[in-house]
Amino acid sequence: MQIKALVFDVFGTVVDWRTSIIREVRAFGEGHGVAGDWADFADRWREGYTSGMAHVNAGKDAWKKVDDIHRTRLDILLGELDLPNVPEHEVVELNRAWHRLDPWPDSVSGLSRLKSKFVIATLSNGNVSLLVDMAKFAQLPWDCVLSSELAGRYKPDHEVYRYAASILDLPCEQVMMVAAHSFDLVAASEAGLRTAFVSRPNEYGDPTLADTPPAGAFDLLAGDFNDLASQLNCL
Amino acid sequence: MQIKALVFDVFGTVVDWRTSIIREVRAFGEGHGVAGDWADFADRWREGYTSGMAHVNAGKDAWKKVDDIHRTRLDILLGELDLPNVPEHEVVELNRAWHRLDPWPDSVSGLSRLKSKFVIATLSNGNVSLLVDMAKFAQLPWDCVLSSELAGRYKPDHEVYRYAASILDLPCEQVMMVAAHSFDLVAASEAGLRTAFVSRPNEYGDPTLADTPPAGAFDLLAGDFNDLASQLNCL
Repeated sequence: MQIKALVFDVFGTVVDWRTSIIREVRAFGEGHGVAGDWADFADRWREGYTSGMAHVNAGKDAWKKVDDIHRTRLDILLGELDLPNVPEHEVVELNRAWHRLDPWPDSVSGLSRLKSKFVIATLSNGNVSLLVDMAKFAQLPWDCVLSSELAGRYKPDHEVYRYAASILDLPCEQVMMVAAHSFDLVAASEAGLRTAFVSRPNEYGDPTLADTPPAGAFDLLAGDFNDLASQLNCL
Repeated sequence: MQIKALVFDVFGTVVDWRTSIIREVRAFGEGHGVAGDWADFADRWREGYTSGMAHVNAGKDAWKKVDDIHRTRLDILLGELDLPNVPEHEVVELNRAWHRLDPWPDSVSGLSRLKSKFVIATLSNGNVSLLVDMAKFAQLPWDCVLSSELAGRYKPDHEVYRYAASILDLPCEQVMMVAAHSFDLVAASEAGLRTAFVSRPNEYGDPTLADTPPAGAFDLLAGDFNDLASQLNCL
């Protein structure tokens, strides 16, 4: 393998979206005096993201930034709560919770090691401005912020992976996709990229829900980003 | 002014392309035992960049990365020298001199101060991979690498500036273009962005060749990036 760049899935792979979102929606609910199952709220919010992107890729919707997809679902979920009228600026701020997600404990140290040897870039379905805000919030040391938004298609559309290699001016086989989700890596591999699976057993709260691909499914399997850095011979 | 993001011209504004390129072409020439006016070589190489982009914007050429525009002119300039056959990999390496440009002395410290308060991004005609390599080489702490390549048009086409604001999810008036060249800032201003002129008297070797806009021509005039950071109340 002659890897020059690593491109990273972000939600779940680099940041712990679920714990961060539960914390923000709980604080929001408590601030408005309503009770709720905030873990369920977070999970259903996340489901809207998946279906929203599928609509875009299927041509049912014109391009929508993930921020807008999040907002559509958030309005539905807030409508189900017994809430007084919430000022628009508070809803805008809550929707931006996705810009303020905590990294996994190894993310910053592992990325810093990987950056010493490779170009490291996001390759997320999150829109560029979301990823830029998140990087500032979580101190993620990206060389470059790449997003499905730049390709005009959402992952796992193969075009997104090829676009990333093209914009980095590299052949696909010199780019490695890093993700905690098999569907993302299967598509990246079909597009010609190398693949590294990183385990994130707590992404969905219950480790039995996490993806656990068999040995040999991808080019590399790593326990976390520091393990990945060691396997790729980074100091 | 409610500025949220600063976008930077790069060649001449952030990096001293001319000194760096003269050094690289002189080393190349000496390595091959040929004499030359390397400052003139550098200046004529740079001229090819300007005309190459104008051809693309005028529709005479399909999209060409700046790397390819540089290579076209480099082949012409090397053809004028009394050189033996140069291996292709050496020409490729010389063309990548534009990925290895030294920053001005204040660039890294000034950008770091500005980054503490604003999103800072490139907005260069250089292709993304060139800008990413340069950032690693020169330790430029960008939050985001934006390029004309992503907009599919070269500056000073207004679309490029509007694209940058759109991808950062900001209204144009919350984005400030920073450049050492009036033509770039005039176009940015016409597109609706705020503008900061930074003096780079040594860009062309002779300070009388540098751009010196009158007071009031742009929103801010700064002596260097640290002066700009101070004017924008950064620590």
